[in-house]
Amino acid sequence: MTRVAFLGLGDIGGRMARRVAAAGMDLTVWNRTAARAQRFMSDIASSASADRVRVASSAGEAVRGADTIISCLSTSADVESVLAGDPAVLRSLSRGAVWVDCTSGDPPTSRRLAATLAGHGVAYLDAPVSGGTTGAEQGTLTVMCGGELATLDRVRPVLATFGGKIVHCGPVGSGDAVKAVNNALLAVNLWSAAEGLAALRKAGVAPDVALDVINASSGRSNATMTLIPQRVLTRAFPRTFRLALLDKDVAIAAAFLREERVPAPITQLAAELMRMAHAALGEAADHVEAVQIVERWAGAEIA
Amino acid sequence: MTRVAFLGLGDIGGRMARRVAAAGMDLTVWNRTAARAQRFMSDIASSASADRVRVASSAGEAVRGADTIISCLSTSADVESVLAGDPAVLRSLSRGAVWVDCTSGDPPTSRRLAATLAGHGVAYLDAPVSGGTTGAEQGTLTVMCGGELATLDRVRPVLATFGGKIVHCGPVGSGDAVKAVNNALLAVNLWSAAEGLAALRKAGVAPDVALDVINASSGRSNATMTLIPQRVLTRAFPRTFRLALLDKDVAIAAAFLREERVPAPITQLAAELMRMAHAALGEAADHVEAVQIVERWAGAEIA
Amino acid sequence: MTRVAFLGLGDIGGRMARRVAAAGMDLTVWNRTAARAQRFMSDIASSASADRVRVASSAGEAVRGADTIISCLSTSADVESVLAGDPAVLRSLSRGAVWVDCTSGDPPTSRRLAATLAGHGVAYLDAPVSGGTTGAEQGTLTVMCGGELATLDRVRPVLATFGGKIVHCGPVGSGDAVKAVNNALLAVNLWSAAEGLAALRKAGVAPDVALDVINASSGRSNATMTLIPQRVLTRAFPRTFRLALLDKDVAIAAAFLREERVPAPITQLAAELMRMAHAALGEAADHVEAVQIVERWAGAEIA
Amino acid sequence: MTRVAFLGLGDIGGRMARRVAAAGMDLTVWNRTAARAQRFMSDIASSASADRVRVASSAGEAVRGADTIISCLSTSADVESVLAGDPAVLRSLSRGAVWVDCTSGDPPTSRRLAATLAGHGVAYLDAPVSGGTTGAEQGTLTVMCGGELATLDRVRPVLATFGGKIVHCGPVGSGDAVKAVNNALLAVNLWSAAEGLAALRKAGVAPDVALDVINASSGRSNATMTLIPQRVLTRAFPRTFRLALLDKDVAIAAAFLREERVPAPITQLAAELMRMAHAALGEAADHVEAVQIVERWAGAEIA
Repeated sequence: MTRVAFLGLGDIGGRMARRVAAAGMDLTVWNRTAARAQRFMSDIASSASADRVRVASSAGEAVRGADTIISCLSTSADVESVLAGDPAVLRSLSRGAVWVDCTSGDPPTSRRLAATLAGHGVAYLDAPVSGGTTGAEQGTLTVMCGGELATLDRVRPVLATFGGKIVHCGPVGSGDAVKAVNNALLAVNLWSAAEGLAALRKAGVAPDVALDVINASSGRSNATMTLIPQRVLTRAFPRTFRLALLDKDVAIAAAFLREERVPAPITQLAAELMRMAHAALGEAADHVEAVQIVERWAGAEIA
Repeated sequence: MTRVAFLGLGDIGGRMARRVAAAGMDLTVWNRTAARAQRFMSDIASSASADRVRVASSAGEAVRGADTIISCLSTSADVESVLAGDPAVLRSLSRGAVWVDCTSGDPPTSRRLAATLAGHGVAYLDAPVSGGTTGAEQGTLTVMCGGELATLDRVRPVLATFGGKIVHCGPVGSGDAVKAVNNALLAVNLWSAAEGLAALRKAGVAPDVALDVINASSGRSNATMTLIPQRVLTRAFPRTFRLALLDKDVAIAAAFLREERVPAPITQLAAELMRMAHAALGEAADHVEAVQIVERWAGAEIA
Repeated sequence: MTRVAFLGLGDIGGRMARRVAAAGMDLTVWNRTAARAQRFMSDIASSASADRVRVASSAGEAVRGADTIISCLSTSADVESVLAGDPAVLRSLSRGAVWVDCTSGDPPTSRRLAATLAGHGVAYLDAPVSGGTTGAEQGTLTVMCGGELATLDRVRPVLATFGGKIVHCGPVGSGDAVKAVNNALLAVNLWSAAEGLAALRKAGVAPDVALDVINASSGRSNATMTLIPQRVLTRAFPRTFRLALLDKDVAIAAAFLREERVPAPITQLAAELMRMAHAALGEAADHVEAVQIVERWAGAEIA
Repeated sequence: MTRVAFLGLGDIGGRMARRVAAAGMDLTVWNRTAARAQRFMSDIASSASADRVRVASSAGEAVRGADTIISCLSTSADVESVLAGDPAVLRSLSRGAVWVDCTSGDPPTSRRLAATLAGHGVAYLDAPVSGGTTGAEQGTLTVMCGGELATLDRVRPVLATFGGKIVHCGPVGSGDAVKAVNNALLAVNLWSAAEGLAALRKAGVAPDVALDVINASSGRSNATMTLIPQRVLTRAFPRTFRLALLDKDVAIAAAFLREERVPAPITQLAAELMRMAHAALGEAADHVEAVQIVERWAGAEIA
């Protein structure tokens, strides 16, 4: 019988944990802010799986006896501070357990975590996810795994409860790296499209007309096909993924490219632009709002 | 009865001209290098439309009596030099004719051409195309038109012989601008993907695995979905669109963004990278070979 | 006897014109806004040279009979519009005269002006100056000349009235190019120093301590030795040279580098940053205020 | 009586150590490659200070009994590996000693070193130097110190044997940061000057003429006043400071600016350019040879 500890019940993590429970696995949850864990318990109370779920009052208590630990926090540093902040965590881990870190983390910290856990007989996977709250709810997340394939195979049934596409990317840290590179491309594609569309707008070309051409042609991307038509042209700018998080991810990609000694002027520049936009728009802004910085500079709306 | 003059029988232009002829229109062709025009005539000799096609020995002779003039040259400067180099051209134009410039041109020169032609009673459209030789052959090109909508409506039947999607973008120059922006996005998306994939490769992530994730996620673009899998991972690098031309187009986009006073760090940087790559790889290189510059810098192949 | 026409009596031009008059040359002045010309006349009224100076009511009148015409306007386009706006100007020019354009202009327009004037038998020099109002007043300006050396030699006595250093740079346009490149380096050196100093400030290093080291070391520049200590650390930000003009000059440099096909990522990026800063800070801001954009992004003052 | 241990006898370190010995201090030297330490001993054998200098066979032996330890290695990682590689080092350190790290290091590693040493009762200063082999020989180096001022005051007499300018920059890591920022400005100023001069050369302006103007004007820097005239225009390119080391330093600056959350597009771009140039020119190239990359791209020499 699989016993899962789930650390971090945020917007994504909470939904993932529910799917683990719904699959009939034994689940212990923990969240730094206890109220969130209580809410999770209330939400799940009437479900069939409720009696196999319990809340732990500390991370150390949560991981005791678990064969699979899943963490889903904001940053790799948060995972490190769970380990460092509560000595009971490392002491309580079962030898032979697997720690699956679904945080959108950074490769160097993931490698340090893997080394620390290996010293306690625990295997580690970095396993960030994409697909948003919808994907978490429907169990269709993409899970990008870094670590030993054999380790991944051991926890695959757990990951399959929330993941529709589970990919073994390479050694520890490579799940983080793939996620970060993907998000850097998102940032680049979005920002460069905004540059072009703002200028076209000023020259008298309606953005929907320009996108109609681009999306039938070689310059198309997820930004031109989905994000800009649905969120910018409509001026809806729904808040689904914070710019602060995209800024963090692009910074991880930029550091990763430096570490791998790949001269990467565009990715590095994108990291600066995300930081500027984040500084200008604040913590609550959605990532697509970054195009408003281009609009401000241009003195024209893309609409 | 529509009488068309077609100037410039290159890889794209020649195929477009054949479709005009095949539609039963009266056609006079001209090419700077006369041998190319002769070859066009030989190729078409056995077709049903052959008797409505003739070759002119000068651009001036070609345009005489035409109600629609189509030019398809390498640069806007080439179109200007056709006008400037043969005074007979302007003298021979019929008042009320329309000049459709399918060159991938630049907005300022298109505006100058429009003004010059207006002085002779001839309307002008900039109308660059996308879709490559296949699109030209099959009549499925996208045609991006800048100029008066009424002018476009007058020549729409001619454009429909080679264009599957005919878009009115805005005033004169805006067809050029849309095409240039599209190609700048292609350059940005391709180059940034190469940066990320080269670093992932060095970190032990196979490019096809990384693309499998990215193409199911938010960072996908035409570059990650089509160009890199088909042309880079296979090391095929077919020569379908020259890097020299992409360099020219991105430079047009970069100048256009400056002219519209839109600060555009990513597009401007892409223009520099295309120039570097073009300088390093020479005139014959295909646009996708630009990723080989990233590979060189990285010391790793994306494969 | 030298007869000089002086077009454009702005902050720099007015002071230059006074030195021409003070040298005993016959001078006719003109300014688009007539009030400025009247003020020039009032200022000079009590001086020994007053009776050799007169004001013209049009540019055409001003140039009539002059052997040397000096223009000192905001942009090359302004010089073109003086020629285009008043047909009397070209008609009134004496064959054999020299037109010295002290505008901080752009090479392509200077080349067009030279060609137009050559058609009327008038030689042209682009001759932008540096040294500010103080240099203009004291006659110590640096004058960067593009054109024939023989042409320069003919007007050297006139230029010597306001220029302390008169340099023959090369063909027409090269005076503009040298000035623009110098100002682009100013922009780059200033901005990059601000980036470093802002980060050092946040890390607890006082800017004056950092500058003390840098100015004794290999990273020093006019920005670190003069501008930042005198204007930024003091928070004085005197308004001596408008950011709008530096933006224009760096854009000229950036276009020049593109025209010469020199991949120049740093200069091109600096052009974007100047445009952003200009857009954010407005028309009145001094060029050194651009560092306040870095400060804003950094969330820290360099002080 | 001051007892100094000196670890790392490279081109700079060896000369610094000689000055420590010449000042009459008790000195124990160590170098990873023992032959270099032997050569140091031979060189010093005939001098008056020879009998107060001895060579240690391990880093642990060298630091035993020393009140001041000076390290001068290639990177901060090298210092860490001296500590990690020989457990005797930490065991042999005297409580109350001061470790002065003259390596051109990086702030995060310096902070880790300081924390490790503090655990053994040893104070730490990061103290990179500038001034080259000449400065080291003549005792005129600039020494940039990060750490407690009181700590600096204790070792000031030792630093004064080789330092002409000893600056307290701020907390641990700030010496590294100041050095890195200085070198990043050097890289930026050099590269941007090369961009401008290459384009001017192509436009017919001789580089010495352009520099004559720039160095009398606002765009001047150490690169335009010293490096380019002496090393590039002469085509001498003496090898005094390796590009590989400048690349490392600019990368340290770039990481530092990211860590301090200062959007810094120019510094970040310079880091990419240095990496490209380093990759293209190899390990032996001097830092000024980086301009040859600009020349290659431009297709023109700056000469």
